[in-house]
Amino acid sequence: MSKLVIVGTVAFDAIETPFGKTDKILGGAATYIGLAASQFEVDSAIVSVVGGDFPKEYLSMLEEKGMDISALEVVEDGKTFFWSGKYHNDMNSRDTLVTELNVLADFQPVVPESYKDAEVVMLGNLHPLVQLSVIEQMKQPKLIMLDTMNFWMDNTWNDLMKVIGKVNVLTINDEEARQLTKEYSLVLAAQKIMKMGPEYVAIKKGEHGALLFYKEDIFFAPALPLEEVFDPTGAGDTFAGGFSGYLAKTGDYSFENMKNAIINGSALASFCVEKFGAEMLLKLDKEQLQHRLQQFKNLTQFDIELT
Amino acid sequence: MSKLVIVGTVAFDAIETPFGKTDKILGGAATYIGLAASQFEVDSAIVSVVGGDFPKEYLSMLEEKGMDISALEVVEDGKTFFWSGKYHNDMNSRDTLVTELNVLADFQPVVPESYKDAEVVMLGNLHPLVQLSVIEQMKQPKLIMLDTMNFWMDNTWNDLMKVIGKVNVLTINDEEARQLTKEYSLVLAAQKIMKMGPEYVAIKKGEHGALLFYKEDIFFAPALPLEEVFDPTGAGDTFAGGFSGYLAKTGDYSFENMKNAIINGSALASFCVEKFGAEMLLKLDKEQLQHRLQQFKNLTQFDIELT
Repeated sequence: MSKLVIVGTVAFDAIETPFGKTDKILGGAATYIGLAASQFEVDSAIVSVVGGDFPKEYLSMLEEKGMDISALEVVEDGKTFFWSGKYHNDMNSRDTLVTELNVLADFQPVVPESYKDAEVVMLGNLHPLVQLSVIEQMKQPKLIMLDTMNFWMDNTWNDLMKVIGKVNVLTINDEEARQLTKEYSLVLAAQKIMKMGPEYVAIKKGEHGALLFYKEDIFFAPALPLEEVFDPTGAGDTFAGGFSGYLAKTGDYSFENMKNAIINGSALASFCVEKFGAEMLLKLDKEQLQHRLQQFKNLTQFDIELT
Repeated sequence: MSKLVIVGTVAFDAIETPFGKTDKILGGAATYIGLAASQFEVDSAIVSVVGGDFPKEYLSMLEEKGMDISALEVVEDGKTFFWSGKYHNDMNSRDTLVTELNVLADFQPVVPESYKDAEVVMLGNLHPLVQLSVIEQMKQPKLIMLDTMNFWMDNTWNDLMKVIGKVNVLTINDEEARQLTKEYSLVLAAQKIMKMGPEYVAIKKGEHGALLFYKEDIFFAPALPLEEVFDPTGAGDTFAGGFSGYLAKTGDYSFENMKNAIINGSALASFCVEKFGAEMLLKLDKEQLQHRLQQFKNLTQFDIELT
């Protein structure tokens, strides 16, 4: 088993969907990534920041899930990052209502000494310079994974390019891949991204699954067809958390094992969307995950004999 | 090997895509279905109608591909069905520019005597009463498959419901499944359709693949990620042709074998979209199909050990 360093927001989210709305609940990229990765009982550390308003029971809960939170800085006189959004009826698009950076505005990440030798680094959505700073603090990571979003393409293009040039795996959604490369075809987009640095590109297509590109090869992980998607918030981060957590647990960074990793990520994401926020991930057990992985096998495995 | 009866349009199409446009070329649901099914060397008969303007060499070509065209009626003083359409830039939507029913308006299908004992019937897109008439002429088919489209929902709802009640398999695209059931979730839509009659429902999602529903089970066949989709015309019919052709060839109508059948349908559809109209299907050989099936295996097969 390898150690896993997780960077990303730890936040309050307020979410509105056609099914209901929440007050401020636990959210943030690093939260979802950490909760998903915790399914694999890896040694993981969260590098992030919250304000004095962040409930102590949330911190305890992350610790109970096995995360090292010594690098989750608490700025006592600051406020936690807050995001609020409203999903449209088809659940495939959303409007951001509020974004308050708060303590994130001046965040200087510090990787814990005992995690500088971690093999796997999962850089969740945050300012590219924060992500870059974490890479620079690591000794000799074997696998650096990056998630990002359109906001950083719009506002910090040059910094983002620097980070993308330093990572092994980029996870990104389909529209963002198109924006990043000016290519409509995801095959062509992935080829362009691989030229920017990453050997692996995972393109997330929401309810249409995810594609993993490596050299000339492509692997596809479907999304589980659900009767109802209740709240998509955090699904992409959960996918990245399952992906990176499985790789850290197995210590095998081959393309063959990456296939298993993204199936695990997709399985965890399928739980995430069943309830508001991180509710499902918080109560998920190993047996449920195994059962869902079996569903993914049933969904995709076939037996055509080739001549 | 079982016999296969194919019903559907044989037509002229004029197609415009962002990549170019065609004059009147060979098209029609039964044409695509027949060409796809011919990959499996099944005994198939085309039940359809064309006008005196339909080139004799097209008829010869269908015969050379092994199709019985004795029930492909030629109305010498009539004109062949003509459809013209223009695809939008994203290739996922299109406008119909022209639809001339011509000889289809009065078409009375007659199943050849030697095909009335066929085990498999593929009812391609046509008036539901034509589809119904073919079902009534069959002796004891083991598997009746139906493809339809929104036009018949809008204009001949009651007739369509009669046919749907008599078939084993419905293939339909995602938007049409939603229209047919008033359900947004494809899982819920498929459940409703199964209550209308079909034991199997295959929902086609274009570039996002196809879902096969049977009782509580779901199987997913991805679309092959392509650098470029040149012309989507006929892809859905090609899918249905590969699906039904493979089943007729193997004579095995179990859910397990249906999985192989829709993978074959998806593989053939992935060829169809690479060129205008039926161009790719006309020159496709067995080796190319085997190679592409291997690509589908590589795309989807993984090896997670469950505990």
